[in-house]
Amino acid sequence: MRGMLVIISGPSGSGKGTIVNDLDYALSVSVTTRKPRENEQHGIDYFFCTEEEFVAMRDNNELLEHAVYVGQYYGTPRKYVEDKIEQGEVVVLEIEVNGALQVKEKFPEAVLLFIIPPTLNDLAHRLAFRNTEDPLEIQERMERALQEIQLIDKYDYLIINEDLPTAVNEIDIIVKAEYLKPHRSQSRIEKFTLER
Amino acid sequence: MRGMLVIISGPSGSGKGTIVNDLDYALSVSVTTRKPRENEQHGIDYFFCTEEEFVAMRDNNELLEHAVYVGQYYGTPRKYVEDKIEQGEVVVLEIEVNGALQVKEKFPEAVLLFIIPPTLNDLAHRLAFRNTEDPLEIQERMERALQEIQLIDKYDYLIINEDLPTAVNEIDIIVKAEYLKPHRSQSRIEKFTLER
Repeated sequence: MRGMLVIISGPSGSGKGTIVNDLDYALSVSVTTRKPRENEQHGIDYFFCTEEEFVAMRDNNELLEHAVYVGQYYGTPRKYVEDKIEQGEVVVLEIEVNGALQVKEKFPEAVLLFIIPPTLNDLAHRLAFRNTEDPLEIQERMERALQEIQLIDKYDYLIINEDLPTAVNEIDIIVKAEYLKPHRSQSRIEKFTLER
Repeated sequence: MRGMLVIISGPSGSGKGTIVNDLDYALSVSVTTRKPRENEQHGIDYFFCTEEEFVAMRDNNELLEHAVYVGQYYGTPRKYVEDKIEQGEVVVLEIEVNGALQVKEKFPEAVLLFIIPPTLNDLAHRLAFRNTEDPLEIQERMERALQEIQLIDKYDYLIINEDLPTAVNEIDIIVKAEYLKPHRSQSRIEKFTLER
């Protein structure tokens, strides 16, 4: 059976990274023009490529989304995602809101999940606890979270991250329910109509 | 939290009645003009009413769907369903395809499930085993099942009834996933944005 693409977004401090690492699914591998770091492997951490290669992929519509970050290109290769899905795998792509909506446009069967902590206050606490952002940055991230949640109706599901096992279980439930959608059941509908 | 309306359709012989009886949810109670049978209770088995009362309900848009069967009116009272949902209950309505699509139009938040056995052959076997239909009726029911499955894209989910516990579990999973839809999460979104 065909797998599916699950896109996970959420504010910084929502805990989405921890959740994604705990899921039992394949992760999407991005293509990038930045240089590999010491322990990064091509095809596992990233597909590393030149700027010409990246631009060619982009112009050939081989990327589901792309963006520039600190002067380097990043993108999601369509073929990698398609191949995994053909092999029956659930592929997870963790990406911010704009990238998620780009992917949904090019790949409408993608399932979009948005993860938030129970309250904005929790978000501030988690960010403060990480100790990597100063108070002004925390304030900015809270404002951004409030802007992003306005786009929630573009998403298929909302996960309130009360605790890790519950959130992971809810994503498993969503995947199981999505497999029961008619448009993912073509082969079973054919079996029903043809076997007699 | 607000509950939801789950509509279950499927061909005669799909096993949907057995599944519905095994679910741990409230059942919708229909209104009808037919006379109560000996052990039937008003408000539990049906809401019994006169033809004038039925027509008034229908004309006041108090019915989510209605139909005539053997000269008697049957309908689904909107208020009963709304009240249960307000009380946080999942309300199940077992109804054929035309009724289901009528309800979806008047009540778009309804979740539509279609249940089929794995193959048309299984359907024929189940109908033959029931011994209530003759071969011609079985043939007609199979033809009708083939017509109904053409409408599957109007439904939200397709359940293949391999066995009762699996089918019941899949419906529970669908209900849990549906609770995670953004449009059913307004109160949690408000909690997120307001508590700080």
